[in-house]
Amino acid sequence: MKINVLDTTLRDGEQTPGVSLTKSEKLRIAIKLDEIGVNIIEAGSAITSEGEREAIKEITKEGLNAEICSFARTLKQDIDAALSCDVDSVHLVVPTSKLHIEEKLKQTKEDVLKQAIETTEYGKDHGLKIEVSAEDGTRSEMDFLKKIFNQTIAVGADRICACDTVGILTPDKSYIFYKELSSLDAPLSVHCHNDFGLAVANTLSAINGGAKQFHGTINGIGERAGNSAIEEIVLSLNTLYDDYKTDIKINQLYETSKLVARTTGVYLQPNKAIVGENAFAHESGIHTDGIIKNSSTYEPITPEILGRHRKFVIGKHVGSKGLKQRLNELKFNYNDEQFKTIFNKVKYLGDLGKCVSDVDLQAIADEVLDIKTEAKIKLEEFSIVSGNKVIPTASIKLKIDDEDLLESSVGVGPVDAAISAVKKGISDVADIKLEEYHVDAITGGTNALIDVIVKLKLGNEIISARSTQPDIINASVEAYLSGVNRLLENQDKN
Amino acid sequence: MKINVLDTTLRDGEQTPGVSLTKSEKLRIAIKLDEIGVNIIEAGSAITSEGEREAIKEITKEGLNAEICSFARTLKQDIDAALSCDVDSVHLVVPTSKLHIEEKLKQTKEDVLKQAIETTEYGKDHGLKIEVSAEDGTRSEMDFLKKIFNQTIAVGADRICACDTVGILTPDKSYIFYKELSSLDAPLSVHCHNDFGLAVANTLSAINGGAKQFHGTINGIGERAGNSAIEEIVLSLNTLYDDYKTDIKINQLYETSKLVARTTGVYLQPNKAIVGENAFAHESGIHTDGIIKNSSTYEPITPEILGRHRKFVIGKHVGSKGLKQRLNELKFNYNDEQFKTIFNKVKYLGDLGKCVSDVDLQAIADEVLDIKTEAKIKLEEFSIVSGNKVIPTASIKLKIDDEDLLESSVGVGPVDAAISAVKKGISDVADIKLEEYHVDAITGGTNALIDVIVKLKLGNEIISARSTQPDIINASVEAYLSGVNRLLENQDKN
Repeated sequence: MKINVLDTTLRDGEQTPGVSLTKSEKLRIAIKLDEIGVNIIEAGSAITSEGEREAIKEITKEGLNAEICSFARTLKQDIDAALSCDVDSVHLVVPTSKLHIEEKLKQTKEDVLKQAIETTEYGKDHGLKIEVSAEDGTRSEMDFLKKIFNQTIAVGADRICACDTVGILTPDKSYIFYKELSSLDAPLSVHCHNDFGLAVANTLSAINGGAKQFHGTINGIGERAGNSAIEEIVLSLNTLYDDYKTDIKINQLYETSKLVARTTGVYLQPNKAIVGENAFAHESGIHTDGIIKNSSTYEPITPEILGRHRKFVIGKHVGSKGLKQRLNELKFNYNDEQFKTIFNKVKYLGDLGKCVSDVDLQAIADEVLDIKTEAKIKLEEFSIVSGNKVIPTASIKLKIDDEDLLESSVGVGPVDAAISAVKKGISDVADIKLEEYHVDAITGGTNALIDVIVKLKLGNEIISARSTQPDIINASVEAYLSGVNRLLENQDKN
Repeated sequence: MKINVLDTTLRDGEQTPGVSLTKSEKLRIAIKLDEIGVNIIEAGSAITSEGEREAIKEITKEGLNAEICSFARTLKQDIDAALSCDVDSVHLVVPTSKLHIEEKLKQTKEDVLKQAIETTEYGKDHGLKIEVSAEDGTRSEMDFLKKIFNQTIAVGADRICACDTVGILTPDKSYIFYKELSSLDAPLSVHCHNDFGLAVANTLSAINGGAKQFHGTINGIGERAGNSAIEEIVLSLNTLYDDYKTDIKINQLYETSKLVARTTGVYLQPNKAIVGENAFAHESGIHTDGIIKNSSTYEPITPEILGRHRKFVIGKHVGSKGLKQRLNELKFNYNDEQFKTIFNKVKYLGDLGKCVSDVDLQAIADEVLDIKTEAKIKLEEFSIVSGNKVIPTASIKLKIDDEDLLESSVGVGPVDAAISAVKKGISDVADIKLEEYHVDAITGGTNALIDVIVKLKLGNEIISARSTQPDIINASVEAYLSGVNRLLENQDKN
């Protein structure tokens, strides 16, 4: 059975505290959502602001395949605002619980019912599709819910939706609740929040109960603990159930997740299901060994179906199989005894609480295998000056193959100036690209340790290097140069 | 019914790729887990390394109330390693699926059964409690699972556990699966992974099915997409179900989450349920209005039960009620028209994709209300020098009440030096504390915009200020000084 997806990344998702998207950002995300097969895009809430209306208009003008929808309260002004943006439909939200009606709206059930019917009629008269949505539906009286839905369906509502506004359903309750509503005379939609970490499970149970459509956001962003994560629901329906399919192109979910994370600034924890950095990363010996023999031992799906790749991480929990694989990739030759020494040194580093980057591992292997490597490029000295009335400027002295080289550069800030000076200095030696510059969030004080990780590319080889220091400029220069030197050595080996 | 908690933050959680804890870090977390009422602490896997054994020993020596457990494979050497650490019990993991037995172990079911029985006997003979755990249990034949469990129970196994190793259960399947196993003659434990975002729901379903104990980690950290999050399960059991209770002290879960995040370096996304930064944050007008009238309109539980506080964020989605509340807190007086102008300006800033910090809001209000404020402290000039052979040094010229003041300072890095110089410069004016210095993770290139947020405290007032620039030093100094000036103004108002 086909399940429709209403994506509310641009409405409920944008309501994530602290998140605010510009017109062009909203448009970019909408185009991507359309590309991956979202059926309905809730583009925003037209009543919110002039800028919001302009953003929604840009999206409706784009002529996407998806139905474009605006959030609206049961107020004529909200419908008018939606109409002014040329949307196809409105998500008409009607508070239905005693708590919301009496305490928030200071109204009666009769008032709410009357407004819901009138607004539905008004919207239908103006050519809109209407999805009538019960806010706090899961804490409402079932009889009242049915009354609202039946009477709005009678005047033309196209779909109905019940919201678990504060995320208090359990999978069992969700099944029973949505099953009851699925007998009504319009397609039923489910909208869950993640306050207890149950949004995805509750959505799946609602679909089992008869919901034909679900609301969700990319990465599960949204108010408080967020909404149900579209990528988790789609992969669950696709992998764990036999009876459902969606129009979503699974192989584009990862890049969509990255786009939304980058644009909203809401970054994902590494252990986020499906799209987190670690979702297909393996470190422990038992797991790596299993994966190498047959990836389904420790992966329920292969990362490739998402357009992703598996990642092996070398650290304290590494096993011999995983470490051998990485050493072989790095083209080291070793006997059993040497391997054992390398293995123990990696474990020892791990016991000290250290992560082992590619560069660290190569340094260990070089030492054990008595490979004399001398850094081709040595940092002799660098200094920077910066300030509010000073152009950030770096000077750098490198020794390349025993020849001194002096360079300088300006930059948008002192780190940029310093790295730029290094880049200029080594530009004759090799064409190395900085693929990624990452600094972990800094919390604590201005003297906290700063963790800089760079990914550098030379030809087809990509290498990671890291430096942790309280000085962000020193850490950046050091991580960068250690990565560059390794890439140059590896090039010589090949 | 009492449900026991086995915390595996220090074993499965530490297996998060890239995470490695030192002895003292492990001990610190173990002490906290014991304090909050965890029944069993899986302290590590004794066979992993010498450092791991030392860490486990430190924990067993501490004399905690919790049972201390080590992971072990069905190998005598693993049990011996566990014994050498003086643990109370082992979590004895037996691969039970055809896939794991044949492809990973290259063994037969008979081999596996024999080893499980022998190791259980060996462990029991040496005084250990044994929890026999079926790895990949949920993809194993039920008959074989029962055989392994029954025969190990017969030789003394104290508890049994089935693992959903690659997270492929759904809540429905979980209920049926664990219900079947709960009839066996030893207490049943559930162990779920979060590959599809269902670990918490599956754990709850297993408990409904008869499991008496669950495995989980703080913050849900662990291999790939992680394990089930203890804080989500405990709050769900406590809030959404009538029949279960745990020994966990809920009011210490938030600080435990912070401890684990800080120690492992695995930071949480803001929309993480229960413990994420936004779990009790509100921005949108409808929500803020509801919360002010009755917090249960948009919060399923109050943040205080977790030892947390509610947070209102001012941004594009703010409503008039929420904005008025914040302006009143900041002691502004305004008429309706003035309020409307402030409101529109905040919305406009939001439409541009900007977050609105306290300091931004005050600047808008000052302008609209024609309040002449002159920054008490003006930044005239600052400059820094730094480098690998240069002590990071900052010089700064401030104008305080029209008098020039020059200061300088060194620091561990240039940001530290600059802020330290500013602090010295203003120390005669007011005793302002830097409560928090935060920089969002930087991704992209060395020229990415850097978002610095500071929280400053003067007396009882705490204020947030922010600056976003590509130069981390400029951003830090600007955010800091704008916050200081606001605090001084607000002090004068009071």
